Amino acid sequence: MRIAQIAPLTEAIPPKLYGGTERVISWLTEELVALGHDVTLFASGDSHTSAKLESAWPRALRLDGAVRDANALHLTMLEQVRRRAPDFDILHFHLDYYPFSLFMRQATPFVTTLHGRLDLPEHQHLFATFTAAPVVSISNAQRQPVPDAAWVRTIHHGLPERSLMPRPVKPTYFAFLGRISPEKAVDEAIRIAERCGVPLKLAAKVDKVDREYFETTIRPLLRPPAVEYIGEIDDSQKSDFLSGAICLLAPSAWPEPFGLVMIEAMACGCPVIAYKQGAVREVIDQGVTGFVVANESEAVAAVSRLARLSRPAVRKHFERRFTARRMAEDYLALYHELIDGRTHRVSAPRMVDGERVRPTVVAP
Amino acid sequence: MRIAQIAPLTEAIPPKLYGGTERVISWLTEELVALGHDVTLFASGDSHTSAKLESAWPRALRLDGAVRDANALHLTMLEQVRRRAPDFDILHFHLDYYPFSLFMRQATPFVTTLHGRLDLPEHQHLFATFTAAPVVSISNAQRQPVPDAAWVRTIHHGLPERSLMPRPVKPTYFAFLGRISPEKAVDEAIRIAERCGVPLKLAAKVDKVDREYFETTIRPLLRPPAVEYIGEIDDSQKSDFLSGAICLLAPSAWPEPFGLVMIEAMACGCPVIAYKQGAVREVIDQGVTGFVVANESEAVAAVSRLARLSRPAVRKHFERRFTARRMAEDYLALYHELIDGRTHRVSAPRMVDGERVRPTVVAP
Repeated sequence: MRIAQIAPLTEAIPPKLYGGTERVISWLTEELVALGHDVTLFASGDSHTSAKLESAWPRALRLDGAVRDANALHLTMLEQVRRRAPDFDILHFHLDYYPFSLFMRQATPFVTTLHGRLDLPEHQHLFATFTAAPVVSISNAQRQPVPDAAWVRTIHHGLPERSLMPRPVKPTYFAFLGRISPEKAVDEAIRIAERCGVPLKLAAKVDKVDREYFETTIRPLLRPPAVEYIGEIDDSQKSDFLSGAICLLAPSAWPEPFGLVMIEAMACGCPVIAYKQGAVREVIDQGVTGFVVANESEAVAAVSRLARLSRPAVRKHFERRFTARRMAEDYLALYHELIDGRTHRVSAPRMVDGERVRPTVVAP
Repeated sequence: MRIAQIAPLTEAIPPKLYGGTERVISWLTEELVALGHDVTLFASGDSHTSAKLESAWPRALRLDGAVRDANALHLTMLEQVRRRAPDFDILHFHLDYYPFSLFMRQATPFVTTLHGRLDLPEHQHLFATFTAAPVVSISNAQRQPVPDAAWVRTIHHGLPERSLMPRPVKPTYFAFLGRISPEKAVDEAIRIAERCGVPLKLAAKVDKVDREYFETTIRPLLRPPAVEYIGEIDDSQKSDFLSGAICLLAPSAWPEPFGLVMIEAMACGCPVIAYKQGAVREVIDQGVTGFVVANESEAVAAVSRLARLSRPAVRKHFERRFTARRMAEDYLALYHELIDGRTHRVSAPRMVDGERVRPTVVAP
């Protein structure tokens, strides 16, 4: 299949720095190539891919100080994709709503994975207008604010199967992984660990905007080795970090649309205790890969039940549900449906402004 | 003629606060209505217009704290315009490059007035891609960084003829009008006034980003009444302020694409001394409405020649060259050319991706 993946130019694919969306695009692209497909990746020129790279700008914009207007480059890239559209069987966008108007009015099937939260007031207006642009959710929970968008499928993210592996070490601490910011509720994680009398290691980046929060709210709570901040870690360090953890604590205070750290933990056999927010209930198999809890006390209580979980079973569940291969196969099935005009609910081809548009695809 | 004007949602039309682009759109829209045309204005719902208002969002975004993603609303508005395109004879956009891809591929003639500077690196890439989207420059100087865009005409801005009028007062000071910021070079204006021994009045806003510049660089130079900061003034105060000025000093340090303050001064019969930058040489008639100079010394020398200028002649030139009526008539002539497929250079209708597109229109 001739597949175009169209990525944001903000970060390289894969990202040089933090960037969940860009990591997922890279994993998906690599798997599609591995499965034998003819994949073209529209992305910044400093990307690295097994697909054909169409450079829409030489450098990722986050690192290109000279560019002030990222939109100019994203809309120029869309024009380039539009001109090349007949060369592809399917166009897969990762650019929010940007492609909707332009690609609703051409013949090559297209789909957009929405990677972010959708609860801003402007999203209501946006999706009330674009009721015919097919979109993929990364969790069912993500759809909640805009149920009437043209959802065609939920496809959970996946990791390359062997990128993170369980290591034969004895788990001795709780882990927190990701970003330190108010919505990630690190202070909750610290209180849970202290109530359980188990050491907590924080492997996390601190963004510039969160620097003050870190210094005033989190740093005073650090008491190494009981509560220890070990800085940001990269992928090569994660297997050790997560294999050594009794569990990952994810007491997030906002409805995260997915939550990659949870499946990273599972890949290492590390169970997750997470607050019932956003995608958590879809990602964690209660009592198998971890526990979904409502608050601090429930989290403390769940810790006592961790011993019942099997770390090999956690890994097994990861392999079944959250590999990049599974993600790529889900997307391929969807591409086939869009190409064939099959979807769970498909209206007749219809006219917009006198132009024939793709069949409206609606959520299952 | 059925005309759509499509404005940014950032500010209301006319703007409640500062906003040159939004003021020009308002003046143009009102004149087109006064000339008997059927005009629809796509803009924020708090706009005030004699045209039909199509509200694309209830409030101007600069004042709407709840909206974080202005792009979502601008692209939704473009979709609304696209669906209504067959209702109009001409679509006139004021949204930079946003409409290019979508409106190049439909039948209603469209044109975009570019209101900003075009010298960022991304502009080169943008206009190298969009060589067929017809654009209007607000000065010839503005075109300089991107000569190969599909320029169809330069149309200078204009003010409503009687909005600012000469008042019978004796001019006694130099005037500076606009914004205090490094690129407006207020310090130059102060030095010019001091060398001439003439008082200078600064009527200017100070943006938040320029507050520190104002406090550290400009405030120490203030010596009322010789150098006096009188704060921001509104349109109702400008006739008095500019009629009382011997001349307007505009020693701008950046290539401003137009410079509305210069024609505001002329409307009051007030000559302008401005630095040779951007549109200045197109707006000032040397030795008639003011003097174009290269530096501080030339500005001081020009002051001694101001007595030769006739203030009624300055007003006369304003009436001939810079009224909103003249601007509207220029746009109407262009609309007719675009509708008829006549332009200074018109290529044959051509195909883009198998679709027939409007004839390419190229600069005269």
